[in-house]
Parts: sequence; structure tokens; C-alpha cells
Amino acid sequence: MIFNNSNTQISPSATIGKNVRIGDNTIILDRVIIEDHVTIGHNCVIGEPLNDYYSNPDYENPVTRIGAHSLIRSHAIIYAGNTLGEYVTTGHRIILRENNLIGHHTVLGTQADIQGHVKIGSYCRLYTSVVISQLSEIGNYVFLYPFVVLTNDPYPPSNDLKGPSISDFSVIAAHATIFSGVTVGANCLVGAGSVVKQDIADYTLAAGDPAKKVTDIRKYVVMGKGKVYPWMKRFSRDMPWGKAGWENWDPDRSA
Amino acid sequence: MIFNNSNTQISPSATIGKNVRIGDNTIILDRVIIEDHVTIGHNCVIGEPLNDYYSNPDYENPVTRIGAHSLIRSHAIIYAGNTLGEYVTTGHRIILRENNLIGHHTVLGTQADIQGHVKIGSYCRLYTSVVISQLSEIGNYVFLYPFVVLTNDPYPPSNDLKGPSISDFSVIAAHATIFSGVTVGANCLVGAGSVVKQDIADYTLAAGDPAKKVTDIRKYVVMGKGKVYPWMKRFSRDMPWGKAGWENWDPDRSA
Amino acid sequence: MIFNNSNTQISPSATIGKNVRIGDNTIILDRVIIEDHVTIGHNCVIGEPLNDYYSNPDYENPVTRIGAHSLIRSHAIIYAGNTLGEYVTTGHRIILRENNLIGHHTVLGTQADIQGHVKIGSYCRLYTSVVISQLSEIGNYVFLYPFVVLTNDPYPPSNDLKGPSISDFSVIAAHATIFSGVTVGANCLVGAGSVVKQDIADYTLAAGDPAKKVTDIRKYVVMGKGKVYPWMKRFSRDMPWGKAGWENWDPDRSA
Repeated sequence: MIFNNSNTQISPSATIGKNVRIGDNTIILDRVIIEDHVTIGHNCVIGEPLNDYYSNPDYENPVTRIGAHSLIRSHAIIYAGNTLGEYVTTGHRIILRENNLIGHHTVLGTQADIQGHVKIGSYCRLYTSVVISQLSEIGNYVFLYPFVVLTNDPYPPSNDLKGPSISDFSVIAAHATIFSGVTVGANCLVGAGSVVKQDIADYTLAAGDPAKKVTDIRKYVVMGKGKVYPWMKRFSRDMPWGKAGWENWDPDRSA
Repeated sequence: MIFNNSNTQISPSATIGKNVRIGDNTIILDRVIIEDHVTIGHNCVIGEPLNDYYSNPDYENPVTRIGAHSLIRSHAIIYAGNTLGEYVTTGHRIILRENNLIGHHTVLGTQADIQGHVKIGSYCRLYTSVVISQLSEIGNYVFLYPFVVLTNDPYPPSNDLKGPSISDFSVIAAHATIFSGVTVGANCLVGAGSVVKQDIADYTLAAGDPAKKVTDIRKYVVMGKGKVYPWMKRFSRDMPWGKAGWENWDPDRSA
Repeated sequence: MIFNNSNTQISPSATIGKNVRIGDNTIILDRVIIEDHVTIGHNCVIGEPLNDYYSNPDYENPVTRIGAHSLIRSHAIIYAGNTLGEYVTTGHRIILRENNLIGHHTVLGTQADIQGHVKIGSYCRLYTSVVISQLSEIGNYVFLYPFVVLTNDPYPPSNDLKGPSISDFSVIAAHATIFSGVTVGANCLVGAGSVVKQDIADYTLAAGDPAKKVTDIRKYVVMGKGKVYPWMKRFSRDMPWGKAGWENWDPDRSA
């Protein structure tokens, strides 16, 4: 009922795997590779050409790869040169500018704007309307909540662009801004609305403008729940350790 | 001139009322009910199937209902299972995930992201890019300004999701974040950029991170204007009391 | 390869210049003027009718003008009554409500929401998801970073709408909120997450909630870089002074 193959356009130079579903009005451009078992929603553009296309008559679209079993929801715009791992899921209307490298099992929320030349690891979850500036690096198992911004310009406007780096297992709450060049360590929690101007050490709960250390995250107690971080010991949904639990998990085997 | 009925797709199991206009490239999916005098813009998807659709061969789309006289602007994505009252108006590119219940005469601004299982009352006005997490509850006559976020996870990531509750006649200014489980009372005003971590009593003006009471809203004076809250006594545009005025209005009759 | 002229709809009353490219599924409505050498991406709506259209049988669409050499990226929604200068570039999914006046060489980022009756000068750069309320005024060479909001209601909800004014060469960092009626002077820098409630004088670095003066911007020193503001003396990308440099530039000639 839903995939009518109506008004779908696929470039002759695109490669479409087995058991792929492509939505109505979706446009698959040159040199896009869609691996097996992928679903692409309605009204998407995959392999959007780079700026150079508009002025260079010899332009050739870079290869774009959508990993097996991925689900790209409707109205996505994915530029040429992106590489998405397997089992990536997106919300609606994401924008991936050129040359991002995204791991497997990562979720990109609705209207996520990944501005190009960004590395995002595996098993990350970016919520609605996150903005990731060029040159940012995000590790594995990182959670970014709505309207988090990673900036890359230390004294705007400048040409000295440098992205922030967010390390494994860290969680950045809604409306936080991470400054250019800042490293957020592993296992951190950054509070909602924070403005992070300095590096944050591993296992830090930080908040405020400018963001400051509140406590060691391992000492942070939620009433009635006790110590709830690091979160991996109590949360396994969609994570590779699953029901076996974090303590029993061998990351070398399955991450 | 504008409704060309070009490339419109309507499921045989959809129900379309009288005097309904449907935009070009719009897709109306299974078991959608569009009541009389509704306008749906271009490039919309109404009745988007739930996640289960992708894996369950026996999937049946839940009923979606768009109330009479509603106006859904272009590029909207409305999942199956939503119920919209009469005279609902939306901006462009709203997203309604599954099973929201929305009252009548409510306005959902451009790019509003209502994440599912949310209750929103009547005569509310949500501005651009508001994000409402699952399980949130919003009363009647509530105003939410751009980039307001209602969160639902008390120690992210967790499975103990609980939405906030915003009571009748309250106003939340731009960029405010309301924490999981918090109740904002009736007739409150929450300042721009606030981070609301604790309940707020009725008639409170609150601001800051964390948000704290500034004053009783009834004592708040704007220079040259005097006491301007509660706002209903001086503002009636699109409200049921209209030109007759708040003092003369019988809510039992027309809300 | 990319402009297939598939499912494109152009009103008979539209005027299309020379060397214009129009994307698939794009709809060009009544009385739109597209000047020479313009590129319009896929899935756009240009000349969207105003509210009055839905109720007035004698409705006539106001003229919409897209200046020569402009590039409008995919999924844009541009209402009737807009006037865009030459060499305007947009990201994807911008929304221009009615009757904005936009200068030349200005860049409107992805998902920018310009709410109508707004003036924006030339050589401005608005980044992702900026929200500009009705009646706002923005000078020339202004930079607005992601999620900046210009508000226009001094005690919401009210009918006393008044936009802010941002003067030439000023830079507003991510997540800042500028209050109704506030004037940000020329050559200012407003920090990320600021809430600007009062006027800011020329050459001010301001930050915080409420935003306060930190220093004269001309005294602000970045370690290893020295004094970096005003930015024009060290930054020329896409600016009219170009490689000749700010000191050698005659604005009366080329701005």
C-alpha cells in the first residue's frame, strides 16, 4: 500500500541492493549505493550534488553509501560523499551535508543537521534538531538531546574552524551549546541549556553558562534511584549488550 | 490555480469529507479520515505508518482523524493514530508522531515536533520548532514560543519516561526547557531561556537556570501598561471570548 | 542529470528568466518573477498564497521576486510578496512568510524561518534554524548563528508587536534570544545562549541572562591571536572587500 514507486527517480549510475524500498517522489542521484534491506521514505533526495556541481561542467558526484538494513525516513536530504553504516535509522527531514562518516546502529533524529566532514560513531542517538558543525567528532554511545549545537568557530566569523569532540558514553541535554575545539570527556553529563567553553574531564556532571563541574557523575544520586551513572549499567535498549547486561558484555566482540 | 490534484495519492480506505482540498504530491494513507472543509497543503504525508509496519506483515494502520475546517500547511507529516479537533491550523512541516490528541482551534507552528502520546488542549498556540516529548500534557489556552522543549527523561537515557504538564493559560517564552515530570501551574509566565526543574505554582512569573519565582504574575507591571497578566483580560485574538471580552465570557458555553 | 523537469508546475502568470533551472516537483505559483541565472532546487513552493487566499474568491497573489543568480535549495517555501536581491543563497527548507525584503549576497541557512514583514540587508549570513519574528530589522554584514531567535512580543501574548533591530557588522552566537524592541548596535558580539533584554551599544561584547556588557569588543583578546574584532579587518570570505582587504575597500562603490 505504501511504496507505490510513484514518481521515483533513480540515476542509472546508482546501485540498489536487494529488498530495498524507495518512497514516492524520492530522487536517487548519481553514484549512490544503497545496500540490501534498506528503506528510504517518501520525498527524499539521496546523493545531492555538492556546490561544485553548479559551476563545474566536469563535476562527478562522489560516492554515497547507505549501509544495509538502514531506514531513512521521509524528506531526508543526504548529500553526495556520505557513508552510513549498517542499521542506521533516521527521523524525518534530516540533512547530511557532504562527506560525513556515520557508524552503525546510530539514530539521527528528526531535522538533524550534520553539516559535513563530521565523524559520528556507532550506537549514538541524536534527537530532534541537533546541529553538528563541520569537523566535529562524536564517539560511540553518545546521546545528544534536542537543539544541542556543536559549534566550530572560536571567534566568529573566522577561518580557523575547529570542531568539538564528544567522547564515548557522554550525554548532552537539550539546548546545550558546545564551543569550538572543546573536548567533552567520556561518561559525562552536560545539563540542559549549558554553554560549554572549556574541556570537561571524564565522568563529570557539568552545567551552567559557562558550564562548570557540579560533581563526579559517579557520585550523582537521584532520589529513590541511587547512583544512576554511568548509565550503561542500567540502560540497554537498542545497545549491543542488550539483556545480557553491560557487565557481561565483550565490546571487542560486538561493538 | 493552486490545487491541481497533481500527483496526489489517496488510499482507498481513506475517508474524505465535503469541500476538502488536497495539495499536489500529498499522500493520504490507510484509514485516514478527513472531515469536511479541510485544506491539506502540498507535499504532505497523512497517516504515516508506525514502526511496526516495517516488520509486521499483518500491520493495520490505526485511524487518523483531521477535524472539520482544519488547515494543514505544506510538508506536514502526520502519523497514523492522531486525532485533531476542528479548526486546527498548522504551520509548514509539522511532525505529529503517533497517537496525539489535539483539541480544537489549536495552532501548531512551523516545524513543531509532537513526539507521540501527547495531549494538547484547545486554543493553544505553539510557535516555530517547539519540541514536545512523549507523554507530555498541555492544557487549554497555552502559548509556547520558539524552541521550547518539554523533556520526558529524568536521568537520560532511561526508561522512566514522564512528561511535564503545562496548565491552562500559561505562557512559556522562547528557548525554555521544561524538565520531565514538572508541573507548570495555570496562568504562569516562564522567561526566555529558562531551565525549569521544579514545579511552578499558579500565577508565577519564573525565570533563569534553574528557574525561580520572580514575582506573582498579577503584580508584574510593564512600564506604561500597568499590570498585564493574566493576559486574557487584554488579549482576545482568536480566543473564544473574542470582542465580548474575557469578563463577559461563559466558558461552559463555548470552550 | 539532476534537473529532469519532472513534475514541475509553473503558473502561466509566472515570469521565468534566462538560464533558470527548476527542480523536480517544484511549484511556481502566480505572479512569481524569477530573474536570470537562478537555480531553484527540488520540492520547493515559490509564491505560496497568503492566508487571504483561503477565504477571498477575488484573491490576487502579490508579486514575488527572486533576484538574478540566486540559488534556492530544495524544499524551500517562499510566500508571495517576498523580494530577494541578487546572489541570494539559501540552505534547504527555508520558510519566508510574506513581504520580506532581503538584500543581495545574503545567505539564509537551512530551515531559517523568516516570519514576514522583515528587512534583512546585504551580505548577511543566517545559519541553521534562525527564527526572525515579524517586523524585525537586520542591517548589512550581520551574522546570526543556529537557533538565534528575534522575538517581537514584549508581554506575550499581546498585539503590541515590535521587532528588534540588529545593526551592521554584528554577530549573534548560537541560542541567543533578542527581545522585542531591543536595538543591538553595530559591531557587537552577543554570546551563545544570551537573553538580550536591553539595548546594546556599538562595539559591545555582551553575554549572559540577562545579557550584560563584558567588554568593549575592540579590547577583546583571543590568546595567540590578539585583538580579533571588528572582524572585517581579518575576514573577507564572500565579502565585497574580498582579497583587497577591508582597509582598501570603498563601500560607496560596491556595497
